[in-house]
Amino acid sequence: MSQPFDFPRIGVLPGGPLDSLADVAGVTVGHHTLAAGAVQTGVTVIRPHDGDLFLNKLPAGLAVLNGFGKSMGLLQMQELGQLETAIVLGSTMAVGTLATALTREAIARHPQIGRDWPTVNPLVLECNDGYLNDAQAFAVQASDMTLALASTDADFAQGSVGAGRGMSAFGLKGGIGSASRQVEGYLVAALVLANFGRPEALTIRGRCIGPLLQQRLRDADKTAGPEKGSIILILATDAPLDARQLSRLARRAGAGLARTGSDYGHGSGDIALAFSTAYKLPHSARVPMPAIAMLHEARLDPLFQAGAEACEQAIVKALFAASTVEGRDGRRRVGLSELAPDWRELLS
Amino acid sequence: MSQPFDFPRIGVLPGGPLDSLADVAGVTVGHHTLAAGAVQTGVTVIRPHDGDLFLNKLPAGLAVLNGFGKSMGLLQMQELGQLETAIVLGSTMAVGTLATALTREAIARHPQIGRDWPTVNPLVLECNDGYLNDAQAFAVQASDMTLALASTDADFAQGSVGAGRGMSAFGLKGGIGSASRQVEGYLVAALVLANFGRPEALTIRGRCIGPLLQQRLRDADKTAGPEKGSIILILATDAPLDARQLSRLARRAGAGLARTGSDYGHGSGDIALAFSTAYKLPHSARVPMPAIAMLHEARLDPLFQAGAEACEQAIVKALFAASTVEGRDGRRRVGLSELAPDWRELLS
Amino acid sequence: MSQPFDFPRIGVLPGGPLDSLADVAGVTVGHHTLAAGAVQTGVTVIRPHDGDLFLNKLPAGLAVLNGFGKSMGLLQMQELGQLETAIVLGSTMAVGTLATALTREAIARHPQIGRDWPTVNPLVLECNDGYLNDAQAFAVQASDMTLALASTDADFAQGSVGAGRGMSAFGLKGGIGSASRQVEGYLVAALVLANFGRPEALTIRGRCIGPLLQQRLRDADKTAGPEKGSIILILATDAPLDARQLSRLARRAGAGLARTGSDYGHGSGDIALAFSTAYKLPHSARVPMPAIAMLHEARLDPLFQAGAEACEQAIVKALFAASTVEGRDGRRRVGLSELAPDWRELLS
Amino acid sequence: MSQPFDFPRIGVLPGGPLDSLADVAGVTVGHHTLAAGAVQTGVTVIRPHDGDLFLNKLPAGLAVLNGFGKSMGLLQMQELGQLETAIVLGSTMAVGTLATALTREAIARHPQIGRDWPTVNPLVLECNDGYLNDAQAFAVQASDMTLALASTDADFAQGSVGAGRGMSAFGLKGGIGSASRQVEGYLVAALVLANFGRPEALTIRGRCIGPLLQQRLRDADKTAGPEKGSIILILATDAPLDARQLSRLARRAGAGLARTGSDYGHGSGDIALAFSTAYKLPHSARVPMPAIAMLHEARLDPLFQAGAEACEQAIVKALFAASTVEGRDGRRRVGLSELAPDWRELLS
Repeated sequence: MSQPFDFPRIGVLPGGPLDSLADVAGVTVGHHTLAAGAVQTGVTVIRPHDGDLFLNKLPAGLAVLNGFGKSMGLLQMQELGQLETAIVLGSTMAVGTLATALTREAIARHPQIGRDWPTVNPLVLECNDGYLNDAQAFAVQASDMTLALASTDADFAQGSVGAGRGMSAFGLKGGIGSASRQVEGYLVAALVLANFGRPEALTIRGRCIGPLLQQRLRDADKTAGPEKGSIILILATDAPLDARQLSRLARRAGAGLARTGSDYGHGSGDIALAFSTAYKLPHSARVPMPAIAMLHEARLDPLFQAGAEACEQAIVKALFAASTVEGRDGRRRVGLSELAPDWRELLS
Repeated sequence: MSQPFDFPRIGVLPGGPLDSLADVAGVTVGHHTLAAGAVQTGVTVIRPHDGDLFLNKLPAGLAVLNGFGKSMGLLQMQELGQLETAIVLGSTMAVGTLATALTREAIARHPQIGRDWPTVNPLVLECNDGYLNDAQAFAVQASDMTLALASTDADFAQGSVGAGRGMSAFGLKGGIGSASRQVEGYLVAALVLANFGRPEALTIRGRCIGPLLQQRLRDADKTAGPEKGSIILILATDAPLDARQLSRLARRAGAGLARTGSDYGHGSGDIALAFSTAYKLPHSARVPMPAIAMLHEARLDPLFQAGAEACEQAIVKALFAASTVEGRDGRRRVGLSELAPDWRELLS
Repeated sequence: MSQPFDFPRIGVLPGGPLDSLADVAGVTVGHHTLAAGAVQTGVTVIRPHDGDLFLNKLPAGLAVLNGFGKSMGLLQMQELGQLETAIVLGSTMAVGTLATALTREAIARHPQIGRDWPTVNPLVLECNDGYLNDAQAFAVQASDMTLALASTDADFAQGSVGAGRGMSAFGLKGGIGSASRQVEGYLVAALVLANFGRPEALTIRGRCIGPLLQQRLRDADKTAGPEKGSIILILATDAPLDARQLSRLARRAGAGLARTGSDYGHGSGDIALAFSTAYKLPHSARVPMPAIAMLHEARLDPLFQAGAEACEQAIVKALFAASTVEGRDGRRRVGLSELAPDWRELLS
Repeated sequence: MSQPFDFPRIGVLPGGPLDSLADVAGVTVGHHTLAAGAVQTGVTVIRPHDGDLFLNKLPAGLAVLNGFGKSMGLLQMQELGQLETAIVLGSTMAVGTLATALTREAIARHPQIGRDWPTVNPLVLECNDGYLNDAQAFAVQASDMTLALASTDADFAQGSVGAGRGMSAFGLKGGIGSASRQVEGYLVAALVLANFGRPEALTIRGRCIGPLLQQRLRDADKTAGPEKGSIILILATDAPLDARQLSRLARRAGAGLARTGSDYGHGSGDIALAFSTAYKLPHSARVPMPAIAMLHEARLDPLFQAGAEACEQAIVKALFAASTVEGRDGRRRVGLSELAPDWRELLS
């Protein structure tokens, strides 16, 4: 269940009612969090629609901003331009376990998969939460994915939850953030798993506040070290776009990301994925394909702006929603709202 | 241990002493096969050199001929242009398990991984052996990867072994094949996991023998159905090429593949990967980088020809090496050398 | 006007009534040929439909098999997935002149271009005809493009005409070839500008006849040297495909090309482009976009086979249609039908 | 000859002595400007080194941030990872003329090109200056390229000169800007041709000053309309990077660009290209290739930061260097330093 939190607003476009990915009708998000001593990790699941995604796939596009990442499922998603499973976010070393769990979940619904039907393409994206979390414990189990999937809802928490539990960003606590923007009658929404950023580079509303925060942090927490990162940026829209257009939209996540202080670092797996809920692609070739008019290319600009803004906003919200977490070996990442309780003062 | 088998020679270039991937010095291959009733599957491991690949990475390039595939590790391999684990081949639904096993294997050697060091990028490629193998049994375990890795040798079997155990090709038994070509003082070698091809399209030495074989097959085996495929093509060379050049080399796998009768089918994950053993890329930024002259671009043509020939030859060898296998639900794939004991007669 | 010529048939699928690109309704082709002494070159224009392509664009996809080429317009074509000018084929060093001519032609129809409207994206593809043609003469003028465009017709010549005038292939005369295939109620057609291939590699119907022809050629023509090439492969279809699917179709041109003996040589600009005539994309964002069901992904395989076959056939037809041409410095390329008047004897 | 101008400094890294592309040793830039009534356009040439670039090519990489562009030469540059001509910047509709001029220039030095040697790959990048310039006049001639090339120097002007003459950005005057950054003993420098940006989005040092400027502009200039753009970003470095690494560097141009207020608009051809001067690639395969150690991948982060900063700084400098220009039909773009003479007041 989501908790209210205070955060600076980004950009000029209006948000949706929830200011989250769930503003796009049918999209739900669930978390399962593991938080016990050195194990600070979890799973986040995005359900792109509430039906059976294997039978009714959604169009999707990809932008690899920096490919230092161990995600699974992107190759086929890009070739076919479609999603056929939920999108699972997790810890790097849990990808194998989560992919198998997602495959088994699809088989449980459709025993024909890998027999009379083709295999399923599980989509798992990751960041490395190894600063706080004991990744070598391989704590995440298949059942954790199931629990996250079962808890998907339009109302979902942000910050140090689910896959975001062990994540760090800009030397602070990172995690899950989400936001939405309305434009030209459509919604463009983002959910990020933020685990990136050099501490001194953090920029909010154009103000580089990293050095100031680092100064405060050195008092609060001696352990902050150099950052190895990654960020996963998921965009959803109800605009009728095809896979090529969605790839174009996904690329704009890089604009929002850059404005928070990222240069797409060498060791950061910066991956953006965009999907549309405007129509469904049937699994069976015997079911008629949707006959739907895509948005004219010349009308994409407002959506691009909305995508960039929603991503920047989602990152900012991830930072402000994240509570302080202590993890392995006494390590600690401080939440921004604890370090700087009043963002107005911070940005003044 | 390899068994001799008879097969038609492809092309005009001379092969290496072993006519296999292991002609490239330092490259070894190991299999572990699971063959019991409905479980007809396995694991094949390619070790690109006999040292520690995480500490001393190799340059590598990628060509996605058709991206209907669930491989893991390709995103980062392409961004960084390097291999840092053994290359593991297996069954589609085993990818998650194999990736985790490969990660654990790297951690066992280097406990710093995911702690003081970045995470490791496990490279697992796959085809769907679900026609013969009960993929839903999820029979492959981490230990099977370990056994395959432990058995790597310059002398290795081809055909219905390792990852090739349950594979089908052109309505016949598919599996592992390997070949090499010598050119301009260099070796270019290929290993394929062949699981592709419409039965009527099989072409050897330019002769389309698919229809003839299908006629024979209808007597031998009533169960042959439509084909869903995939082929993984691994190229190795000792020529000094960088990642960009290796991507160019990998793309030529598509020429060899096409000549056997493939149109890179929609549902076939046709992935080619090429690596060079000519130099190593240190993990540590404190170790000097190799100062080595790459091959001049204008000298690549003979290597391209060798790559295409080696791939075509490896596919043909996979077919002729493959023994007949019976699998789940009484299904059966006949080995080509059983169906057509004399290839000279077949191609006359 | 086309002249009948004899040639071996490739593959198993039925051709269209014309066995040419013009079997796809609305597609026309025109040539303008410059043949005088050392100037042996020309222009070929493909009109994808008979209306105004700038106002009513067509969906298109690209496959770069080997990017050693100087084409113009591909960057934007790939980003937007659409054609907005005729496709012009010519000699490498004429690309600049042809692109300017194509831009002027669009402006003549629409003076708003580059003023109130965006600029136009001229699409010009090329091979290097410098073996026979004195490319440094820069003989091609804007008016040659205009003449080629004015002569577009469903009935068009093949061989040593238009852009094909000065082209070489496999040490023989190359040029323009075209073919079509019918499959599942759709047409897939190809037109190639063939200027590629190592002489000894030429393969027709799986038979490598290069060495035999070289032997004959050494008697007929002492000047044949090593080959620098390129091939442009244009695919048209009336199947309703989007730009992503058309890129997949274009990639299959590489399968047909490989079967004629190409390894996609280093110095060969091997570019394939596919477009669909099934629907039009309006230039104006105020005109409604087409609401049309695309072909289901699982139904693409027959089209892929048709695309590969049509390309292979078009290359073979280019060779058999090409008449012998003498060019600069007494150089000469012999047409295959002159060198081997009876292909049945050749392939027996 | 450059004129001093005042501008706000971006970022935290130190610039080079010239704060321009020419800080990278050997790189020079030349302009030729056409400014007469409705003709407000020109040519800018970047010489990557002072020798013969066809004989001694430089490694280069590409990032297509948004492919709405008509550049020429990028396809081959990406395949081979190398530059072999000067980089020419100009007006969209002049690309054909400039490409031909560049080809002729190479032939003048090497008559073997297109005869005994392969053809040359002319590299021409463009933005559409049609707001101010009468692009339909096709005013740019081959001789203008020659003059720009002849004037290349380490000391070069910025703003409304050369290719920048007719460009617009954020509803203001755009044009040429250049900057450099020093990091880890290397230089990373940028030159931009800025012709992009929604007026209300202009952001300098994180401050969105677009709306304020628009307010002032409505008084100064009634003609400012919606923006169709493009930006070309050229990065040079003396760090030893290969083509793959240079592509990674080029991608970071997108981070700097985003921070000025760009979302990589649909109709904006946003193209970044990076080259290294650390070593040369010989044209002749008989000349030994350089044996040089590339920079370790883990040492790229500071260069990425420098690349992003240099691009953002170059854009800001383009705006502040640009003088007001009047062009066709009484249209006018006001230079930022005229509109806001004191940037300190502007950003206070």
